[in-house]
Amino acid sequence: ARITLLPGDGIGPEIVAQAKRVIDTVADKYGHQFETPSCPMGGNAIDDFGDPLPPQTLETCQASQAILLGAVGGPKWDDPTAKTRPEAGLLKIRKELGLFANLRPIKPYSELLDASPLKREIIEGTDILFFRELTGGIYFGESGRMESPDGEKAYSMMTYTTSEIARIVRLAAESARNRRGKLTSVDKANVLEVSRLWRQVAADVIKNEFPDIEYEVVLVDAMAMHLISRPSDFDVVVTGNMFGDILTDEGSMLPGSLGLLPSASLGSDGPGLYEPIHGSAPDIAGKGIANPLATILATAMLLRHSLNLETEAAAVEEAVARVVAAGHRTADIAAGGKSISTSEMGDLVI
Amino acid sequence: ARITLLPGDGIGPEIVAQAKRVIDTVADKYGHQFETPSCPMGGNAIDDFGDPLPPQTLETCQASQAILLGAVGGPKWDDPTAKTRPEAGLLKIRKELGLFANLRPIKPYSELLDASPLKREIIEGTDILFFRELTGGIYFGESGRMESPDGEKAYSMMTYTTSEIARIVRLAAESARNRRGKLTSVDKANVLEVSRLWRQVAADVIKNEFPDIEYEVVLVDAMAMHLISRPSDFDVVVTGNMFGDILTDEGSMLPGSLGLLPSASLGSDGPGLYEPIHGSAPDIAGKGIANPLATILATAMLLRHSLNLETEAAAVEEAVARVVAAGHRTADIAAGGKSISTSEMGDLVI
Ligand SMILES: CC(C)[C@H](C(=O)O)[C@@H](O)C(=O)O
Ligand SMILES: CC(C)[C@H](C(=O)O)[C@@H](O)C(=O)O
Repeated sequence: ARITLLPGDGIGPEIVAQAKRVIDTVADKYGHQFETPSCPMGGNAIDDFGDPLPPQTLETCQASQAILLGAVGGPKWDDPTAKTRPEAGLLKIRKELGLFANLRPIKPYSELLDASPLKREIIEGTDILFFRELTGGIYFGESGRMESPDGEKAYSMMTYTTSEIARIVRLAAESARNRRGKLTSVDKANVLEVSRLWRQVAADVIKNEFPDIEYEVVLVDAMAMHLISRPSDFDVVVTGNMFGDILTDEGSMLPGSLGLLPSASLGSDGPGLYEPIHGSAPDIAGKGIANPLATILATAMLLRHSLNLETEAAAVEEAVARVVAAGHRTADIAAGGKSISTSEMGDLVI
Repeated sequence: ARITLLPGDGIGPEIVAQAKRVIDTVADKYGHQFETPSCPMGGNAIDDFGDPLPPQTLETCQASQAILLGAVGGPKWDDPTAKTRPEAGLLKIRKELGLFANLRPIKPYSELLDASPLKREIIEGTDILFFRELTGGIYFGESGRMESPDGEKAYSMMTYTTSEIARIVRLAAESARNRRGKLTSVDKANVLEVSRLWRQVAADVIKNEFPDIEYEVVLVDAMAMHLISRPSDFDVVVTGNMFGDILTDEGSMLPGSLGLLPSASLGSDGPGLYEPIHGSAPDIAGKGIANPLATILATAMLLRHSLNLETEAAAVEEAVARVVAAGHRTADIAAGGKSISTSEMGDLVI
């Protein structure tokens, strides 16, 4: 199988290097052949090719079973008025590969719970799987500017169609069925027309195809509260692109260790894209101290979802859990205690 | 001065009754004359007049110096496909009175800190004043449905104009100047065109009119994280209608006591509207156990912002602080301990 690597910017190359070693180890141990081409994407691709997602990168991705991304962006490419920015590459690869479902598990490691900003009794037992719609909504709607009596007027349109809503809700509901059987759909149907369609279609899908799962709807503002006050009440949560962006980032604070959270972006066929949820951390890039665990856990998700290698995926997750349980920490999760380097952490997992 | 009361639904009438007693006491003690007409709004107004904001209510409000609202809504009026809903009344009164600035202070009482879902060391010292834009953005943009190749398609448009952005940023910056001198503007300018205009206009206002304040911009997804991980770093935060809806509700969890949080909605002239941020709590309506303190604190904001009675406002806030410090608790903040009734709490403040 071909796994395309997109190391990206900042700490991206360092953490992807460790994930690649894990991939090679899995290949060795379990007798697989993985081809792992590496392609430019993000700020470095803007510098070298004037394009955050050069055509060749996209082609290589399209001809792969799966893609592993490090992180993109950094202050060098941050100017909001620039002609193109690293984010444009992210949005484009999602759209081109039809990666409409972003999966974000939020499950704290009990050994790291003290690093959570939440009290232990609130966060304990939390195990949420978010499904964020990733190729629709306001991030992809029509937008522009015009003159108005009140000065310049800018607009961005949030849209959803029946089929966009149905396919992500269906995927989330299937996953709920394989977990604890509960699905929460988040919208703002008391105010937004687009959310009213979302709520209607979601209810239809559940009623017709998943009458066996426990289903609830929650308003986005209320969900922002519940995530902090009673996170352990949720199982699978499905929502639109922007609400998902905000809520999954809020949720990512709960475990107290951003450095251990992976994400998967899936389409209906074609390769999935896997990445750590943290950014490119330009401040520590090149120092060899970044935490590679989220990227390694993203690799486990890749083995599971795109290559159908459940045993291998579980083995990688088990290795990470053991390393964490044994007390090994990179600087970000060391809480001032003893810390090891990026490659030492890679060694331990391997 | 005329202060129009809109008791609303659920516990609304009970908590507004206590606030009215406080208003009467302030009038007595400080020698003011307040007229306090009471008008229907919300679900009860739908039942009686088929309109959550009957024309007569709006007229009375327009002819007032200030408005005190309890809470509206309840399961009885919750059907998202109903012809009209209590929320429509809220949106309409905001628009009709030009209440473009929603102020939400987030400042925990130290006696109640143990009720926060956050660890004490994270929440301690938090003192944020949110300015949420309230009459623009996606809640008021064009919306509708159409047929598409993918089934039905719904859309809701987020728009902002230069002048809408400038006036709320200006108000927030003025307030920052009177506080700790720091302003944070929240947007999603890395993706949304409407946020790019927001960022541009905000930067211009600050550069030209408030060069003395400390100014920063934060993306909405990052802000959802920072609010949990380092809330005490913020002073005044300004953002659009929907981002503000989500972030202020997230922020409202921090103090651990929803029952003590007021909010003010102001226009450029005309009456301001003041309310507790909590809902109508239909489950405990009529039991005489609701917490009137948020409504009483909203009354203090009313005295300050709409009637310019700073001494009286501070006296009411001081009275609430002393009652809380003395250990008096309604059921919602009693943590299983001894609790008092709505009217007993009113008595103590008075
Ligand atoms: C960088 C940006 C376009 C992106 C998004 O908002 O989708 C990021 O915040 C994310 O969540 O992956
Ligand atoms: C009820 C609803 C229209 C309202 C809003 O979203 O503005 C509420 O959530 C609020 O924050 O006041």
